[in-house]
Formats: sequence, C-alpha cells, structure tokens
Amino acid sequence: MKLSNMVGDRFKERPSDCVIDSHAFSVRGGYIKYVSNGIYSLYPPMKRVTAKIENIIREEMDAADSQEVLFPVVLPGSLWEESGRFESVGEELLRFKDRNNSSMVLGMTHEEAAVQMVREWGNTYAKYPFSIYQIQTKFRDEARPRAGLIRVREFTMKDAYSFHTSQEDLEKYYDVMANSYFRIFERAGIPEVISVKSDSGMIGGSVSHEYMLLVDAGEDSIVLCDECGYSANMEAADTTVDNSGCTPIGELTKVNTPDCKTIEEVCNFLHSKVEESCKAVIYQTNMTDEYIVVFLRGDYEVNETKLTNLLGEKVHAATITEDCGLCAGFCGPYKQEAKCRIIYDKSLEGIENMCCGGNEVDYHYTGLNIKRDIGDVEYVDVAKIRTGDICPVCGKKTIRISRGIEVGNIFQLGTKYSKSMGMTYTDVDGSVKTPIMGCYGIGVGRLAASVMEAKHDDYGPIWPISIAPWQVHLCCMRPDKAECKEAADKIYNDLLKAGVEVIYDDRNVQAGVMFADADLLGVPVRVTVGPKNIANGQIEISTRDKSVKELVNVDDANAEIKKLIDKLFDEINSKVRDRI
Amino acid sequence: MKLSNMVGDRFKERPSDCVIDSHAFSVRGGYIKYVSNGIYSLYPPMKRVTAKIENIIREEMDAADSQEVLFPVVLPGSLWEESGRFESVGEELLRFKDRNNSSMVLGMTHEEAAVQMVREWGNTYAKYPFSIYQIQTKFRDEARPRAGLIRVREFTMKDAYSFHTSQEDLEKYYDVMANSYFRIFERAGIPEVISVKSDSGMIGGSVSHEYMLLVDAGEDSIVLCDECGYSANMEAADTTVDNSGCTPIGELTKVNTPDCKTIEEVCNFLHSKVEESCKAVIYQTNMTDEYIVVFLRGDYEVNETKLTNLLGEKVHAATITEDCGLCAGFCGPYKQEAKCRIIYDKSLEGIENMCCGGNEVDYHYTGLNIKRDIGDVEYVDVAKIRTGDICPVCGKKTIRISRGIEVGNIFQLGTKYSKSMGMTYTDVDGSVKTPIMGCYGIGVGRLAASVMEAKHDDYGPIWPISIAPWQVHLCCMRPDKAECKEAADKIYNDLLKAGVEVIYDDRNVQAGVMFADADLLGVPVRVTVGPKNIANGQIEISTRDKSVKELVNVDDANAEIKKLIDKLFDEINSKVRDRI
Repeated sequence: MKLSNMVGDRFKERPSDCVIDSHAFSVRGGYIKYVSNGIYSLYPPMKRVTAKIENIIREEMDAADSQEVLFPVVLPGSLWEESGRFESVGEELLRFKDRNNSSMVLGMTHEEAAVQMVREWGNTYAKYPFSIYQIQTKFRDEARPRAGLIRVREFTMKDAYSFHTSQEDLEKYYDVMANSYFRIFERAGIPEVISVKSDSGMIGGSVSHEYMLLVDAGEDSIVLCDECGYSANMEAADTTVDNSGCTPIGELTKVNTPDCKTIEEVCNFLHSKVEESCKAVIYQTNMTDEYIVVFLRGDYEVNETKLTNLLGEKVHAATITEDCGLCAGFCGPYKQEAKCRIIYDKSLEGIENMCCGGNEVDYHYTGLNIKRDIGDVEYVDVAKIRTGDICPVCGKKTIRISRGIEVGNIFQLGTKYSKSMGMTYTDVDGSVKTPIMGCYGIGVGRLAASVMEAKHDDYGPIWPISIAPWQVHLCCMRPDKAECKEAADKIYNDLLKAGVEVIYDDRNVQAGVMFADADLLGVPVRVTVGPKNIANGQIEISTRDKSVKELVNVDDANAEIKKLIDKLFDEINSKVRDRI
Repeated sequence: MKLSNMVGDRFKERPSDCVIDSHAFSVRGGYIKYVSNGIYSLYPPMKRVTAKIENIIREEMDAADSQEVLFPVVLPGSLWEESGRFESVGEELLRFKDRNNSSMVLGMTHEEAAVQMVREWGNTYAKYPFSIYQIQTKFRDEARPRAGLIRVREFTMKDAYSFHTSQEDLEKYYDVMANSYFRIFERAGIPEVISVKSDSGMIGGSVSHEYMLLVDAGEDSIVLCDECGYSANMEAADTTVDNSGCTPIGELTKVNTPDCKTIEEVCNFLHSKVEESCKAVIYQTNMTDEYIVVFLRGDYEVNETKLTNLLGEKVHAATITEDCGLCAGFCGPYKQEAKCRIIYDKSLEGIENMCCGGNEVDYHYTGLNIKRDIGDVEYVDVAKIRTGDICPVCGKKTIRISRGIEVGNIFQLGTKYSKSMGMTYTDVDGSVKTPIMGCYGIGVGRLAASVMEAKHDDYGPIWPISIAPWQVHLCCMRPDKAECKEAADKIYNDLLKAGVEVIYDDRNVQAGVMFADADLLGVPVRVTVGPKNIANGQIEISTRDKSVKELVNVDDANAEIKKLIDKLFDEINSKVRDRI
C-alpha cells in the first residue's frame, strides 16, 4: 500500500485526553477514529494488526480442536432469562426492544448462545468433549470507557466454550487452553504475559485465570511473589498478615479521645501502633440496605470484591442515620448493639491487645482482646493484600503488587449455564447428566493496544513482526529524483511479488515528516532509499528498534530484507513453546 | 475435521417452515441454528463457507485499491441525524438508548460512519480518489425476516465507500467495482449473476445496479430482454406500451353501467377492450393524506415505488370518505372535480377512444379522448412492466419477467452524505468542494444461501469448490475393519499434510446415513474407502455433481484427488475475467 493514499491522519501533538501511551499513539498514528464514547472505527493499520492477531488466535484455537462458529451480536432477552443473567447482570448489559417489542440484548459474552447452539446435539456422552469458538463483535455498556482500545464499549473478542463429562476432563482441556493462550501471546510478541489466579465475577464458576501483561499503565493490580512465582489478581489473592510479636494481653479500658477523627490520629493520641488497632468500615447491601460492619486491622483496606463474593451480593458505602445505632467514626466490636452484620477480617487474628472504637462519640477502647472480650469469632479474608505481605504459597514476606493489563481470561464454569438452561446428555450407563463447561476469552483490540503499550519508545509503537501492520516500511527520500524513485519503485514491486507486506512512503515530504510517520506506524523493517546512498548503488536497511542499521547494495536489497524479516520471525517463534 | 466430532445435527425431514430449498438444506445440513426471528448462529460448515466468500471479496476489494477498515456496529444517533436518516429511515433502523440515555442505532449500512472516518483526512484534492471497505455485522429490523439466511435481521456484509472529485471519476470507479463484483460472483461459482439497473431506495443517489442471481425461489422480479440483453428491476424498468392500432376517435357518451364493479365487468358490459379502458387507482400521501389519483390503462397495475419516487414521498391506499369528492369505483378523468392530484400514466398515451369512470355511481363514459376532452396532460411512467411489453432499449416486444435474488448492489450516491455531513476538500484551484461518493454492498450470508439455492439437487447443496466448506469428503465405510480404517486414516493424514481441506466421516454408521450426510454437506470431491474396493487395493473418487466416479489405486489416491481438485478450481477460474 502507498502511504500517500492511506486514509487516516498522523500528527505530532499528544491529544490532551490520552492518559496512556498506547491511546496517544493509536490516535496520533492514524490507527483509530473516535466515533462515540468507547466506540471506535479502525483505520487500515489497526485493522491489519487486529486481523493478524485474529489469525494467530484462529490457528491456535483450531490446533486445540476448537471449532469455529458464529453467534449473533443481537440476542433475545429470553435466552439470558434462561440463565438468570437477564436480571443479575447490571447496566453493562445493553437491553432494548425490537420493532415487535421483543426484549433483546447486545451480546457481551456468549455462554447462553453457546449452550443454545449445542444443547440438542450434545445429547450423548459419545460427542464429548468438544469445544467451539467465535471471533465476533461484542458490546458492553461500560460506565467509564477509557484508554483507547484498552477499555471500550464495542470490541472484537475471541470467545471459546468447551463441554465435558467430568471435572477431570475439563481440567485437562483447561490446561490445553492455558497452553494455547501462552502460545498466542508469545506469537503476538509478548511472551512476558503471566497467568494469575482470578475472581470469576459475573461469568461464574470457581476456578479462573487472567493473563496479565505487566505494564505501568495497566489498570489492574497483580499480586506477585518473586520468590516462588505465585501470582493472583487482587480479588483472588489471600491476604495473610503477620501479627506475631505484638503487644501482650492487657486491660480493656474506655478512654476519651477528643478530636481524633482518623485511625492514625487515634493511634497517635493513644500511643498505640496502627498495626494493633481495629478499624470499622461500614457498608450496606444493595438489595436490602442491611448494615455490614467490617472490622479489620487499621492499616488495611477492604477489598470490596472479596466482600461481595463472601456476601453473595453487592454492597455500597453506608449512609449512617441517627437511628441506625452505629456511631460513625467510633464504631467498635465491643458492646456493639446496632442491628447489623459484623465481619471480622483475618488481619485482626492474633492481635492480643488492640485499640478500637468505643461506640460513643469521642471514646475508644484500649486493650481489647477479641477472644477474651467478645468470644470466638469467625475470621474471613476481605482485606486488600499489600506489598510485603506473606505469600500464601511460600510463606515468605515477599508479596509485590504490580500493574498490568488483562489480555485474556479462562474460566472453569462448572454447570452454571448447562444446568440453568436444561442441557443434558445420556451417559454410557444410560443416566442423564449435565455437562461441565469451560470458557475462554481474548479481546482482540485490547491485545493490540496492550502490545503497543508494552512495546514502544517515545516516537511510536515498535510492533513485533508477527502482528505489525506491514513487514517493511519503504521510504523514498527524494521521489522527485528519478534514480531514487526508480530504485524505490523496483524494490516495492519486487517485494510485493515476493509476498512481502510493504507500506511505501512515496510522498514528496521532508525527511523529518517521513521518519516521524514511520515511527508512528512502527513497522519493524525500514528500507530507506536516499539520493546519497543510491549514488553509490546502496540503500539503508534498519529496524524500528534500532538494533540493525546497515547499508546494502541495491542488487542485494530484496534478499537482505527477506533475511531480516526471517530473523525477526525466528526471534519470536523461538519463544513459542508447548508447556503440556 | 472429523465428522463424528463436529457440532450440529443433520436430518432427513424437511422442516415445515422452510419454503425454499436453501433454507431447508441450511437447517437439515447443520449449517445454521435459529436463535430468534431472523437471527441465526452459524455452525462450522456455514462459518467455513462464509469465511471463504469473505476472503474472495477481500482479495477483489484489495485488488480494486479499496482499503479495509472497520466501523462500529453500534453508532451514535447523532451521526444519523447529521445525514437526516435518523428521522427518514423507518422502523428497520433499530434505535435505542444506552445507559447514559444517549440515542444509539445499530448500523444497517455505514455511509455516515464512512464520511465521519475520512472527512478531516480527505481535505485536499490530492488525496482523491480513495475507497474504503469493511466486512462487518449489520442489523436491520426487518418486518418479515424469512427464507433462512436470504432475508435476516442480523447479517454480515461487505460494504465499500468511494470518494471522488468528479462524476466522471466516480463513474470510472463504479465500472471498476462492477467488474470486481462480476469477478466475485464468478469466483464464488455463480457466473450467471446479472447486473440490473435499479431504484436507489433509502440509500439515495440516482444511478444504481443490483446483482441478481436468477432462481425461481427469488423474491425479486427482474425485467429482462433476451433480444438485446437489457435488464432492470421492476422499479427501474421503463414501461412502454403499444397503443397503435386502437379504435379511432369517437363520441364521448355517458352510459349507465349497473352492477359493474371491476374494470373487466365494465368492459364486458360496454363491449370495450380492457386495452382501451382507463382505470383509477387512488392513494393518499403518508405525510399530508393528500389524495393521489393515478389513471392508467385498465390492464396495468401501479408500481408504488415508481410512484413514490415521482412524488418524493411514500403513499398508502386511500380511504375514500363521503366528502372527499371521489366516487369510488367510478372515478374518471373527465369532469373530475375532487380536490386531488391527478397522475396520467404513459400506458394511456395514444389511446384515442376509451372508456372510463363517470364520477357518478353506476355511470361510465365511452369515447373519451384525453387530448380532446381534457387537454394536454403530462404522461409519466408509474405502471408495472409486464411480460411481452416493449423493451425500452431495442424496442421489440420481448420483455420477460424473471425471479431472482439480489446478491449485491452498487450505488452512485452523489453528494447526499458528503454534503449533509459537511465534508469538503480544497480543489487544485483553491476552491472548496464537496466530494462525490459511491457505495457498494454484498451480503455474505445471503450470497452463501443464494449459491445453495442455485446449486443443489434433491439431496443437498452442490458447493462450488471455491467456497465449499471442505474440498474433500472422506467416507470410511467400515471403520470397524482394520484395512479400511488404516487406508482412510492414511489418506486423511496425507491430504491434511498436503494442505487439502478434508472432512472425515469416521463414524461407524450405515452407508445410507453416511452418504445422506455427505450430500447435505455438498463437498465437491468425495473419497469412499470401502471393504470390497480396498481388498483390490482401490478406493472410489467421485464428485458431488455426479460428473466423475472412478476407482483409483490407493497408492495414487492423493495425486488423483489433488488433480481433481485442481480441475474443479480451473473450471471456476476459467470463467473469471476482466471486463474493463
């Protein structure tokens, strides 16, 4: 393709609304066009990148014996009523009525459609296991779309669904898919992606993993242990707190604490350590407004997803009314008489002598010992894990929190959908059973943007050759000079004939403009045809990452270019391996 | 792929709701799964067919220098307000509100999105002409979806948009696209597709063509002249009526015509020819309910699309009220005093002596001569053309009406969208101008179903090899016999290694079931490994269309199969040609 003809503008200024680099380069490089909040059109470079990612995904899914199908974007609401998700999913599920006043939704994930497709066919054990996938547009009415293609409302996604007759068989296939996922990320040029244990959220199921690309701009926090390799997302990471070596048991005393609003002020005033304080965080459930009081160590925060999972329903910050019985700012577990549900976080376990709220304005207790003063309580884990906490696997104080982007996820779904939607099969012994499912997703556009976020310099993306919009960026520095134009034209045509993907900058523009545009397009191999070199019968071949820069004879140009392309592919493919 | 593992059921009984064959085979062959009215999931065989069609389209669009992009499925209503179509398009445009109460639509065509994508970039003449296309899901809330994938609500479509600085340049590119379209249909195995002049409908513009596959089950009527090759759809075909040799001028007489309700009864009673009668068809405009009286020859019908195009607005059948002044059943042009707009169809031109309504119950006139009795009137063409009418090109009475399916369309849009949406460019002389557009559509699923409709026998589709779900259908007749299974397994693995697409029926089922399924899958080359032949070291190779059936030695199997595949491809490719 010739650059002079390609739709989409490239420009220098970073748009003020772009917080992360990949978003800025996506806009500046003519990759995406804003259409509406969280909705973009794709210009040719991004369309080409996503098409290559889709092909890699397709090859790996086919290799994992998954069958490509296609589900609709618009689904009847009745299908989601079967699974119960028509009611249970929030506003991110876009519901509307068609011209006949039928209730419809825009598919944001396709578990229901997958079950509907195979529930008659999969009626006997002999058909199992099987797996189906699609690559299709999805819509999720996000409250806060942001960061370009990282968090959008409309997106292209690969989603696969597998069906099994036993948990063991699901786990076996789950490992196959986990392997495929690593291969996909390796082939896309980001072998550094890690898988982390995750919370299953609205998809359901018990075991699930997220694939995380660790980048500073990531919106997710990931829990890592460099010592043993443990990894999890914040919701799935068990918080283990070391309370050994704390102050021995003491006397329970109610003390006046005037003007102490925060836990730090209270501890300062009482000369207590924050690590030996008990603070209260108060919520109300969304459904019934029941008060939920979480007591946890003063220096920890509540992880609301853990709390939601524990309660089985969502919560919001409490509105403390005069008659609710809770004393805002001074709420403590001792002689707590309000009508509420009390939850003790594990971070309090093992503290013998702590301060806490006195359930009266300007009063706290010191010397609280929960076992002695309150009795046996159940400790649960609802606290956010922190850097330096104890690794739940190796037991060392090695926990580190990193930022990352979720580029894929896999779930062991169990029978959530097959059971609610009445899918059954006859087993070998004639009994009727419910199949066990897994599901496996990758967002195509997000993956493209994530690679851009992980692989760039100050001037633009540095695309891995496997997903680069083109393999070669050919710059003709002086198209007004016949010898330059002829040489560049010949290289262009020869490369095209050889099946090489070339973007050809044939514009009569200044070198600065030409190179800035080339940097923004991030094509791995650059070929520069300039008047000085061409006078010596030479052209320059370089790589976008600056690792190669050499002059070669014009006659050797094509062979050298192809050698370089092969080398770049080899570098990527050498990192692709099977783990199972 | 092994058939034993492939999702989707095949069965023998024709579903009662399938009116046309391609719909029946789509359901019976496990190609599609009904999800909702006009909404289907695609099983692997149809996904594979549509993927191949998409690749053919993609190659031809790329060859026509169109650039692949991607527009969103969900579009902001404001974009459609810019073009005026948010209001002007009917209920088939699905409108809804998102969670922020913003007005959104589901894209049913993407002219607005195309202009929005390029209106800043295309700001100078130097960038023109250019063309962009996408292959993407669309939604059109059809009132009566039917016939499987032929008329659905959700569909995958290729839509291209071109931008030009002159009408001549548009016409040049329009011809390029017309050529690409013929190549696409030829490569898809239906070289018999014809292009017909068509009415532009809600897309707009003046010149447009539809690509029609002539099949009896088609829902469109096409006007053809076998003499000169003229073709048009019913809306675009000029109706030319031969009124030479009619009765000479006579006396205008009002006569009593008791109990004559229809034009035939009147003519019988008066001993007049229907060909020398004038009937009235009465409409009202949708916007203002103005009465529109169309007078036309008694044996013709009104084409309401022609009438709508003439009036510039839609009409409905009139409600005749007591005080409207029109005498239902006896409405005629002479002394017509009702408040209405009168339209004279060209079918009346040249009749010297006709009967018509008397504008009084039970009365008609005979001997009406419009020129003498009414004066000079303007004749327009709003009549439906009929078999045997005069060809508007060669002038012979050779018009024939045929049934067809529209498999593509191309439009010269003019400036309808660029002007309303404020897209301009600076011309070479510094003046600011509005670009001229073309648009070009092909429905992928409809094309697949149309090929099925055109190419099938009583047992299933006969897929052209270029878009067949697989190239080879391998049947192992007795997988329980080691020599059969080993031979079939070897052929399967060898063909896969050679890059041949094989569906392998490895099931232990009766021959009847196996062959019925093979017929339903319609794969062009069939390879049958049976115990009798294999004992002689032979296998059978045949084609789905029964033109080839031969025994070959097992050792030659792969070479012979590949030769046959090449031959089938050659047969298709020999019909692909460039017309421009």
